[in-house]
Amino acid sequence: MDKPFLDKLRKIDPYVPGEQPQAADIIKLNANENPYPPAPCVQEILRRFDAAQLALYPDANGKALKSTLAGRFGVKPAQVFLGNGSDDVLALAFQAFFCSDRPVLYPDITYSFYPVWCNLFRIPYETVPLDGDFRVRVRGYDQPNGGVILPNPNAPTGRGVTLDFLEDLLQHNQDCVVIIDEAYVDFGAQSAVPLLGKYENLLVVQTMSKSRSLAGMRIGYALGSEVLISTLEAVKNSYNSYTMDVLALAAGQASVEDERYFQETCRRVAETRDRSAAALRGLGFTVLPSLTNFLFVTHPKKEAPVIFEYLRQKNIYIRYFRLPRIENYLRITIGTDEQMDRLLDALQAFL
Amino acid sequence: MDKPFLDKLRKIDPYVPGEQPQAADIIKLNANENPYPPAPCVQEILRRFDAAQLALYPDANGKALKSTLAGRFGVKPAQVFLGNGSDDVLALAFQAFFCSDRPVLYPDITYSFYPVWCNLFRIPYETVPLDGDFRVRVRGYDQPNGGVILPNPNAPTGRGVTLDFLEDLLQHNQDCVVIIDEAYVDFGAQSAVPLLGKYENLLVVQTMSKSRSLAGMRIGYALGSEVLISTLEAVKNSYNSYTMDVLALAAGQASVEDERYFQETCRRVAETRDRSAAALRGLGFTVLPSLTNFLFVTHPKKEAPVIFEYLRQKNIYIRYFRLPRIENYLRITIGTDEQMDRLLDALQAFL
Repeated sequence: MDKPFLDKLRKIDPYVPGEQPQAADIIKLNANENPYPPAPCVQEILRRFDAAQLALYPDANGKALKSTLAGRFGVKPAQVFLGNGSDDVLALAFQAFFCSDRPVLYPDITYSFYPVWCNLFRIPYETVPLDGDFRVRVRGYDQPNGGVILPNPNAPTGRGVTLDFLEDLLQHNQDCVVIIDEAYVDFGAQSAVPLLGKYENLLVVQTMSKSRSLAGMRIGYALGSEVLISTLEAVKNSYNSYTMDVLALAAGQASVEDERYFQETCRRVAETRDRSAAALRGLGFTVLPSLTNFLFVTHPKKEAPVIFEYLRQKNIYIRYFRLPRIENYLRITIGTDEQMDRLLDALQAFL
Repeated sequence: MDKPFLDKLRKIDPYVPGEQPQAADIIKLNANENPYPPAPCVQEILRRFDAAQLALYPDANGKALKSTLAGRFGVKPAQVFLGNGSDDVLALAFQAFFCSDRPVLYPDITYSFYPVWCNLFRIPYETVPLDGDFRVRVRGYDQPNGGVILPNPNAPTGRGVTLDFLEDLLQHNQDCVVIIDEAYVDFGAQSAVPLLGKYENLLVVQTMSKSRSLAGMRIGYALGSEVLISTLEAVKNSYNSYTMDVLALAAGQASVEDERYFQETCRRVAETRDRSAAALRGLGFTVLPSLTNFLFVTHPKKEAPVIFEYLRQKNIYIRYFRLPRIENYLRITIGTDEQMDRLLDALQAFL
């Protein structure tokens, strides 16, 4: 049958999001979610919210949340951008800032969405290989480019770079926009935020999905110079003016206002991580130094997919990427101490 | 100062969303919001929701809500697409379906976001003038094109077309994707949904912002053939897999499950609309026949901007568009009976 309308459809490889296991009794260490609930005031927001308010459009500009975030980070509200999760922020930033014929640069092992966005928006890109220990090589970015995006800490390796490294990167990349994707920064890495005053071409992207336990609420944000943020706003407002619903705006603000709970939660996850890393090393795993809420591990005697399948049979879900250079590695999200003990017990039994 | 990174930024006219008046005592008839609260079960959803669930990612595929919508409209779940408000659905549909060198066609007076998306995604377009009474001329679309998008009813005119008209349009446009934007359809117009079985190139877009009083929650959806929906999913999943937060998914489902409240709310708004239209005609206004939750009016003796300003002084906010052909028209959202009486009293005093 002849269907000419099919010729007008966008041809694109369907990117399929990971299936979330739904069973009740599973230990879910596969999506880098936080094992602790969001700040208690988020529950209060929901309990007391007057649903009649949902009939009205949200504040398209999210003034209240921007102002709260600006206060926390010591920047102006005009230096804050909000999005429907940091994926939304990054997708808009790729469209807003990577408008050159030169390739955008990022590591060969990194967040799998970067090439997807480059393909969707037809942005040329090149990957820069990590070194043999999965460290970012700063000199690899000393080449003409259309922009740089670097996660710090990197995923799925978990390794972070220092503020000196970031400054070196920025010093050598002043003619393009440099995006530092800090999805996992709150678990112990150094943020690029202190460099915002010095580098107008720096955009720092963060999320409330991990450290603030709000993955289900979809809240991301970016901090940058006013020229970058206003460009991002222009693109966003040409796409969808109302990306943030009223409950996301309210929940995000409640979370940021409880700094103590936030610090305490991050500290607990980091402690469990360090204890789990030591225990895994005790079982013979090689564990990359992690500044995130996950561990990237390999075992010299057991193949990663075999370990992965074994744990799945035990209702413990972790993450395996069938990708070059990391085909024998596993990513394990940090859960509660009890969850990690059950994982360690299962691994000990297996080995 | 030389700043080469500025050359790599996207140059785009900043689209600025309308400022929402914040004063407490205003009558807000400027944003086509519903004056009634959402279905009572939405309040219950919020009250009982366990905030700990927010730590987990939502179902990227929104299976439960898709299945509920599929049931209501008599289609398969694979024929339903979900988005962060219908603006998100439309923005993705423009990227997914309007991939031709030929111009996309839509009315000269219509939703102001269509040219914004065309500019953002670099899609060629042409407008087809409405007739002298602001009716859509179906024969204007009988020309080679890269796609058609038509709101039914149209905004800001409020006029609708019949199912026969839509079938005529589809008969003559089978080689492109035809999008019918039904943001206001529930207040009395004929939906194109019954044509879905016959036209694989038809996409129907609806929203929960108006008839379901959920503007603050950002829920839009599209219904279409499986080939259109899967293309839309591929683009969406290449942009942001998690556009819908867990509360939006839950609130939307609760709303669709209460058909009785929905029908009753739409009926009340339509009754108030028809009564208000008659009263405005009694005051000398020309009122276009409306199948929406707003009226598009003009007065032969008073200039629209003057009426607009007068009402604003009285804390009554309506909408004025400073655009060709409609520079003497005003758009008035239907509020409660009491709100409309206060509007009518103010207009009577003015005239």
